[in-house]
Amino acid sequence: MKVPHLILELCLLTFSFTQISAAPRAEPIQPIKRPSKVNAKEVELGKKLFFEPRLSKSAFISCNSCHNLATGGADNLKSSIGHGWQLGPINSPTVYNSSYNLAQFWDGRAKDLFEQAGGPIANPGEMAFTHKLAVKTLNSIPEYQKEFKTVYGVKTIKIKNVQKAIAAFEETLVTPNSRFDKWLNGNDKALTANELTGYENFKKFGCIGCHNGPAVGGTSYQKFGLVHPYTKDTKTMGRFAVTKNPADKYLFKVPTLRNIELTAPYFHDGDTWDLDEAVRLMAWHQLGLKPNEKEVKSIVAFLKTLTGELPKITYPILPPSTASTPKPDTSFKR
Amino acid sequence: MKVPHLILELCLLTFSFTQISAAPRAEPIQPIKRPSKVNAKEVELGKKLFFEPRLSKSAFISCNSCHNLATGGADNLKSSIGHGWQLGPINSPTVYNSSYNLAQFWDGRAKDLFEQAGGPIANPGEMAFTHKLAVKTLNSIPEYQKEFKTVYGVKTIKIKNVQKAIAAFEETLVTPNSRFDKWLNGNDKALTANELTGYENFKKFGCIGCHNGPAVGGTSYQKFGLVHPYTKDTKTMGRFAVTKNPADKYLFKVPTLRNIELTAPYFHDGDTWDLDEAVRLMAWHQLGLKPNEKEVKSIVAFLKTLTGELPKITYPILPPSTASTPKPDTSFKR
Repeated sequence: MKVPHLILELCLLTFSFTQISAAPRAEPIQPIKRPSKVNAKEVELGKKLFFEPRLSKSAFISCNSCHNLATGGADNLKSSIGHGWQLGPINSPTVYNSSYNLAQFWDGRAKDLFEQAGGPIANPGEMAFTHKLAVKTLNSIPEYQKEFKTVYGVKTIKIKNVQKAIAAFEETLVTPNSRFDKWLNGNDKALTANELTGYENFKKFGCIGCHNGPAVGGTSYQKFGLVHPYTKDTKTMGRFAVTKNPADKYLFKVPTLRNIELTAPYFHDGDTWDLDEAVRLMAWHQLGLKPNEKEVKSIVAFLKTLTGELPKITYPILPPSTASTPKPDTSFKR
Repeated sequence: MKVPHLILELCLLTFSFTQISAAPRAEPIQPIKRPSKVNAKEVELGKKLFFEPRLSKSAFISCNSCHNLATGGADNLKSSIGHGWQLGPINSPTVYNSSYNLAQFWDGRAKDLFEQAGGPIANPGEMAFTHKLAVKTLNSIPEYQKEFKTVYGVKTIKIKNVQKAIAAFEETLVTPNSRFDKWLNGNDKALTANELTGYENFKKFGCIGCHNGPAVGGTSYQKFGLVHPYTKDTKTMGRFAVTKNPADKYLFKVPTLRNIELTAPYFHDGDTWDLDEAVRLMAWHQLGLKPNEKEVKSIVAFLKTLTGELPKITYPILPPSTASTPKPDTSFKR
């Protein structure tokens, strides 16, 4: 059986080479690429931690609860549910392709995935745990101790190891080979005429000014309501919360539009479930435009070509707790 | 590549035949077997539904929330968290090997997995949805319509189709090839002397009277506190809730002991997190016995040989909602 296997490997190698060597079209959007270097054991550990409910106070909420890999990497709720059924102030952004963001969270308060991974664990409105108890939990479980030792050479697991492993896993959560990427890579037949018109409109109207780069977003902060003020959301101040600069009020990170058809409701406040309406609202509030129905439909058709191949994830088997593992605490005072 | 493939298939066939033909030891516990006939498309659909949060009112809770396949098929909480963070009255039983149970739920109120699957969806303390809205949700999603049509030939999805698919998936959630099963199948070296002593004690003390069959339980209802009354739990009446027969007060389905090391806390009320203590409490309340420390340890060592091979599950990708999909309702009045 060795020969056919070798042939298969050669085929795959040739195929990969073809993919890498093909120069994509010169466009303001670039194809999504898989990370080039991956430490398989680190990623596997990170995956376990991503699905690990014992990183929350209740042992009921994991990263995957609000960034569900089955549903576009988000929870598809207006705002997320945290410890004690608290409803958060903001819509959960997708974890897919999040490595392409210039910073993490809507207000960019974490500079990268490593920094982000520590946030929700200790946020009283989300997982409501502490970093101290999170690492105490992991250190109480021999299988985790062993895995962290293998990956990071540490005897005692530290929160930075946890964050690093989660970030390493998240870096693999990219969605290449969307129909739009196939078109970018030179396949003229990958898009219909209407989808292509949609892309032309997307550029012509100026959507591309903010939604650009491989993730079709994630490259800048912009004021929500740049041309026509947006007054619905009164809960969040955006980037101002980080910089305290009044000029940064209502500035939010421009979200990725990759896999957008999977991640309703839309905007940082989850204001609309309808992609057509989202396009109209963006055109009005950000660009002062009122595209006609046909133009909106074409843009939505284009947006749906951004759905890529979601990675195939084997659901992890998590190691059992021990006598010294902190017990879940489901209590919540209102 | 056809010849090696054929050889591989022949090897697998021979291997299967060998497994089936080997007569297990004549013991009151039998090895776990994989289901013989499986409709792969039905199972795949059932898997999606098992992980489908949109079968709950909030679109946040799925079957997997309380029967988490990553953590022994249970949530490892004293009692489960439902809609609005309600804490249920009873400990979530594992879904692994649940097809071996004589009936479902601790009080046996569902006669099989099909009947069980409809329960939590409409339970106001759990997923808090209605069957009507659950099928409305699925019927609003073209990909689900198509899959149900392929599997069941139906144009309109009915709740019975949903239950049937979930049950079909759950029937595949068996955990064969534990070390104990290897011993049952004739491998003398699969158990240590202490584990074997534990099994002998398990039989000698009478644990086997209730914990027998392939699932090492699930074959009968028994009074909790048969010899020495158990007075801690005041929330549940067990089988009495179903039969209204006073003789059935505090009768519960004997749980499986398969994978027991993965599913703390123990008993219908999740009273203890410690397997040693669980063994001592059972011996006292059910059998009037006080095994010594060495005997307890040996039984626990035996119990840990019941951990089998958990199925490898590819995490599903769920199809997106449409404009006609009922919106999540996270509201909850206290």
